[in-house]
Amino acid sequence: MRALWLEDQRLSLRAELPEPVPRTGEALVRVRLAGICGTDLELVRGYYPFTGIPGHEFVGEVVQADDPGLVGRRVVGEINAVCGECENCRAGRPTHCERRDVLGIRGRHGAFADYLALPARNLQPVPDSVPDEAAVFVEPLAAALQIQTQVAVSPDSRVLLVGAGRLGQLIAQTLALTGCDLQVVARHPQQCRLLAGRGIPTVEAANLAERRFDLVVEATGSPSGFELARKAVRPRGTLVLKSTYRGEISVNFSALVVDEISVVGSRCGPFGAALRCLERRLVDPTGLIEAEYPLARGLEAFAAAGQPGALKFLLRP
Amino acid sequence: MRALWLEDQRLSLRAELPEPVPRTGEALVRVRLAGICGTDLELVRGYYPFTGIPGHEFVGEVVQADDPGLVGRRVVGEINAVCGECENCRAGRPTHCERRDVLGIRGRHGAFADYLALPARNLQPVPDSVPDEAAVFVEPLAAALQIQTQVAVSPDSRVLLVGAGRLGQLIAQTLALTGCDLQVVARHPQQCRLLAGRGIPTVEAANLAERRFDLVVEATGSPSGFELARKAVRPRGTLVLKSTYRGEISVNFSALVVDEISVVGSRCGPFGAALRCLERRLVDPTGLIEAEYPLARGLEAFAAAGQPGALKFLLRP
Ligand SMILES: [Zn+2]
Ligand SMILES: [Zn+2]
Ligand SMILES: [Zn+2]
Ligand SMILES: [Zn+2]
Repeated sequence: MRALWLEDQRLSLRAELPEPVPRTGEALVRVRLAGICGTDLELVRGYYPFTGIPGHEFVGEVVQADDPGLVGRRVVGEINAVCGECENCRAGRPTHCERRDVLGIRGRHGAFADYLALPARNLQPVPDSVPDEAAVFVEPLAAALQIQTQVAVSPDSRVLLVGAGRLGQLIAQTLALTGCDLQVVARHPQQCRLLAGRGIPTVEAANLAERRFDLVVEATGSPSGFELARKAVRPRGTLVLKSTYRGEISVNFSALVVDEISVVGSRCGPFGAALRCLERRLVDPTGLIEAEYPLARGLEAFAAAGQPGALKFLLRP
Repeated sequence: MRALWLEDQRLSLRAELPEPVPRTGEALVRVRLAGICGTDLELVRGYYPFTGIPGHEFVGEVVQADDPGLVGRRVVGEINAVCGECENCRAGRPTHCERRDVLGIRGRHGAFADYLALPARNLQPVPDSVPDEAAVFVEPLAAALQIQTQVAVSPDSRVLLVGAGRLGQLIAQTLALTGCDLQVVARHPQQCRLLAGRGIPTVEAANLAERRFDLVVEATGSPSGFELARKAVRPRGTLVLKSTYRGEISVNFSALVVDEISVVGSRCGPFGAALRCLERRLVDPTGLIEAEYPLARGLEAFAAAGQPGALKFLLRP
């Protein structure tokens, strides 16, 4: 099959890779559409030593599974393949399974390919009313919703989102659903337009009220984004880290202690909730799509996705 | 009056400072006993630009107050003097008052003196059954209890405390009250003995199970203490920062995100709860006292308190 291949921080297109062979309990999925996200770009930059086929945002069709009822279904898939038996699995934290592999990120080939394999229990059928172009966003949309599984966002919370890129736009849309008083620091005109279209106000970093926000979500992945977020959060407020960060960031711990700030790391989220939000049309991710490339032009798509302010680039095998 | 005076990171004894003049609503308190804590040592090292009389842990006797019922009472005092009107005060976060001064730390002379002044509403009478030598620990004991106002500690939580100095010992005693499965990383034999005397097990840093603790409290104030704490906390666990930190600490944000760790800064706590714990003899801080010095020998006391592994040194005016 065809796939993008990452090795030693070099991405290449391969035409004749073997199709994945499903292991016990796994299903074989033909990829219909896949999305490039910030983590993929960071993988290519060496954020994590991964060799193989990247890609973890996808919608596909099951072509082989133990359960005949699953074959032919259009599905999305939870990207953490877990053991079900370790302490984290048993404690209800399967995304933290100690023996997990992660689609296109760690120990498992991913979605920038004609086919992928995942445990059948990871797959969730997509309702007919949700088109591929929306379903391909289920993974990052679930990640956005994860914030609300970790932090109580009240309808009267003052919330700031720093960063309005690929993931930031989805976070803005899901935070807005709470009714909270949301402002977004966005850098690019296109990002601001998308937010304005949904009635979400943007704010200039220079005009930000300091120490005023109950909740601040950092979605830039940059030290300057963290610095801005840190200044904006109120005493005893919460600062959520919702990005992929390169290297280490220097933090003034005394300031965290004096202001009693909570800093909360946030990763993968609930697929079921993401699908429900799409089915109810509460979230519309399709406005984020900048372009769709055939898989064969995946390297071009990666180059375009890496430009500043770029939103979502899709690959269709 | 006599007092210790801090200026340009130099501590001196002054014999003829004016007594504080209570402002509207303030009471004048004769200091009976005061304690030296890590923050005082850091102030002398320049952690915060404070000029004046340091000291914020005390028990004293009211000698002047609007309410005649308060005069003659033995009291401890909440160290944050607040406006009652700013956003933080109105939101129930008075210790984060935007216009606060803080006894012996910021904008208000402190307790290493014959007399101090505090708003009368900051003072809490000490029950007769609680001796001065215990009451002088109310402020740091309240700070220890603050952890449990911020984080739910369950009787079956696995908890690690890193650091068993002055504040660490009080944190160990208050965490132990929850019934939780507590282990402490202690460095000095004296610290271990105190813990052992209360049935609290210590553990060598080298033997620590990694990624296993639901809650880790960092009470060393050092980058290496944080590093140890970080490694010990489980995915989705909580790491409480409960110390005074100098400068900045480098943090791997990606690791916080991947493991979805919460880092929580923690500062001043509930005085009423601290007094109740002492009255019920649930906590015994007096074992932490290494020596009591007359105020006139305060500089010696500071030198001794700054030695590695030193516990509590008291000053009696
Ligand atoms: Zn992603
Ligand atoms: Zn597992
Ligand atoms: Zn203190
Ligand atoms: Zn105030």
